[in-house]
Amino acid sequence: MKIETVDFFYLAMPEITTAADGSQDALVVRVTAGGFIGWGECEAAPLPSIAAFICPMSHGACQPVQNAVLGQPLDGPADIARIAAQVEYDCMDLLQAAHTWSGIEMALWDLLGKVRSEPIWKLLGYGRSFRKTPYASQLFGDTPQETLERGRRSRSDGFRAVKFGWGPIGRGAVDADADHFVAAREGLGSDGILLVDVGQVFGEDVERAARRIPALEAARATWLEEPFAASAYGEYAALAARTSVKMAGGEGAHNFHMARNLIDYGNIGFVQIDCGRIGGIGPAKRVADHAAAKGVTYVNHTFTSNLALSASLQPFAGVEDSALCEFPVALKSLAVDLTTNHIQRDADGEIAAPDAPGLGIDIDLTALETYRVEVEIAIQGKIVFRSPVAA
Amino acid sequence: MKIETVDFFYLAMPEITTAADGSQDALVVRVTAGGFIGWGECEAAPLPSIAAFICPMSHGACQPVQNAVLGQPLDGPADIARIAAQVEYDCMDLLQAAHTWSGIEMALWDLLGKVRSEPIWKLLGYGRSFRKTPYASQLFGDTPQETLERGRRSRSDGFRAVKFGWGPIGRGAVDADADHFVAAREGLGSDGILLVDVGQVFGEDVERAARRIPALEAARATWLEEPFAASAYGEYAALAARTSVKMAGGEGAHNFHMARNLIDYGNIGFVQIDCGRIGGIGPAKRVADHAAAKGVTYVNHTFTSNLALSASLQPFAGVEDSALCEFPVALKSLAVDLTTNHIQRDADGEIAAPDAPGLGIDIDLTALETYRVEVEIAIQGKIVFRSPVAA
Repeated sequence: MKIETVDFFYLAMPEITTAADGSQDALVVRVTAGGFIGWGECEAAPLPSIAAFICPMSHGACQPVQNAVLGQPLDGPADIARIAAQVEYDCMDLLQAAHTWSGIEMALWDLLGKVRSEPIWKLLGYGRSFRKTPYASQLFGDTPQETLERGRRSRSDGFRAVKFGWGPIGRGAVDADADHFVAAREGLGSDGILLVDVGQVFGEDVERAARRIPALEAARATWLEEPFAASAYGEYAALAARTSVKMAGGEGAHNFHMARNLIDYGNIGFVQIDCGRIGGIGPAKRVADHAAAKGVTYVNHTFTSNLALSASLQPFAGVEDSALCEFPVALKSLAVDLTTNHIQRDADGEIAAPDAPGLGIDIDLTALETYRVEVEIAIQGKIVFRSPVAA
Repeated sequence: MKIETVDFFYLAMPEITTAADGSQDALVVRVTAGGFIGWGECEAAPLPSIAAFICPMSHGACQPVQNAVLGQPLDGPADIARIAAQVEYDCMDLLQAAHTWSGIEMALWDLLGKVRSEPIWKLLGYGRSFRKTPYASQLFGDTPQETLERGRRSRSDGFRAVKFGWGPIGRGAVDADADHFVAAREGLGSDGILLVDVGQVFGEDVERAARRIPALEAARATWLEEPFAASAYGEYAALAARTSVKMAGGEGAHNFHMARNLIDYGNIGFVQIDCGRIGGIGPAKRVADHAAAKGVTYVNHTFTSNLALSASLQPFAGVEDSALCEFPVALKSLAVDLTTNHIQRDADGEIAAPDAPGLGIDIDLTALETYRVEVEIAIQGKIVFRSPVAA
């Protein structure tokens, strides 16, 4: 069969804030081939990602993503890899292309899984989908007391692992940050798994980051996530050498090599991959393989819908040792409403990649209308993109 | 003064081909502040780059580039660096932002230079602008005989250094490639500087690249450019360890760290920076400083107009040891017509960054009309971008 259509649905909440909450909008991709439908989601700015699909060609190494996708044969995983290589080559100079392609790639796997009536993790070669311990992802409070209360609430909600992120950390005094780490540990209890995400706040300043290390060690943080800019490998390695707290990073990787480099040169302990950015499920699986070979723990990065969550679980579903997973718990309504089924925690509080074919997640077409953002792009007076109708 | 307006002019030739010729279209940026005008050029897909400037916010770390730019104070180089850091942080998840910002950053330097009546290289701290030996950049011929003739023609056109790129290399037999290298050397003569660019054709296959090394060494190639994917540092280093031919790369770097990593981990001998991609002149100057400290030679990457060429010469204008520069010799008419003055070779065949204020290059406003691509983007029925009128 051949890839017949690729549609982009730009969805958004009525109001978007500067909160570090990636579920406020979405770019959902629908692919059709041979009478089957596949769905995917880019974790990306919707308008530039749409533009990267339909823009006029600039030259041979700066082509729109659609040129390498539409009409291509799709009969197995090798076809997805072949199209991915073509996108990478033909869109070498189109920076946004990786984010655009990520959602399409996911949709191709979903479609193939439906054709073969198999979950994607089986198509990837895994024999089973191991359960993972989901960690609740939330922001630090404005005060240590708020942070403590958020930790307690997550525990009472059944989460043994919690990630606190962003907020005031790194912006004020070292002692103020330490108070938050103490509060987070107290809120979680002594057996909780504490994860800390500082969202690149230290840029490339190793010393400023290092001053927070004693408090992070005392609070027994499992990892320190993104202390530095995504490609500042030397800084990651320098800080890693000075503490027992493992470094975590990788969500910014937009190809396999960037994640591999963060492992090989940044000396991270946890590699966090967003399938909606790295080019989809295929390159994420390569990262999982490389991480296993290097003794690094693979974790998904997911802050959007359960469609993206399922995709992000596939690449390491069969890796028993990678037992933690990110689980977005405070999604905006659009990310909840987008899918008719959701990945639920079991009696032990754990989750797993679905056993159903493809991604195992169904789209609610009415949500595509409810949250629809109407986009129209015209070039030389000719409309080259108009938001599609779902039904 | 404050940044008042930022306008994007999308220009294109009537016909765009798949040739590896970046001068077939252009994205020109005009910035106004305090009654002054600055010009810059993104080396990037125009439509996605425009979209990255004006798109709706997705969340706090995925904001449109304009949010960090419009209305900002601009009184000196420190302001440009401050805005750059803000763009990097607020547009962390907007992949295309670096390419969009690159043209703006250039325009801010141009504007500041005009305010102070100084060339940008002086604002960067250089005492003088050293002359560089321009290399003519062209494609390999389809046959070795064509390659030989192109080499001869470049020499008779007064170029002592010539880069041959892309074409059939890496796509057929090793012997066929060797014939091209022999022909290129013969065409250039024994004292010519031979540079070879293979445009990432070997992906991550070190062995396939290594089989071309004996012929490259025999032809005395000064560098082998982009044998591998831009972030495949391990592969660059592995090949570099096996030959006296220096590796060259860096045009794909879209921030300082990526170029630094290619130097530190890829063991390249020449780092090639495109100011229209890396975030402008400021990060390029940082790369030049890092390269000098590491004994690596900085070279510009430029395949578009003389506005971009001037920008690309500024970061290493004062580095006497970096004596080679890329000089596009077969520009499409839009890239020629765009500027009223051009950087010319002197009697010795050398060029230098202009002494005139800013970039020292004047824009021909009529070219902005002649090659104009009309773009209109509407969101929820409201027009958020329409191609500006130049005059």
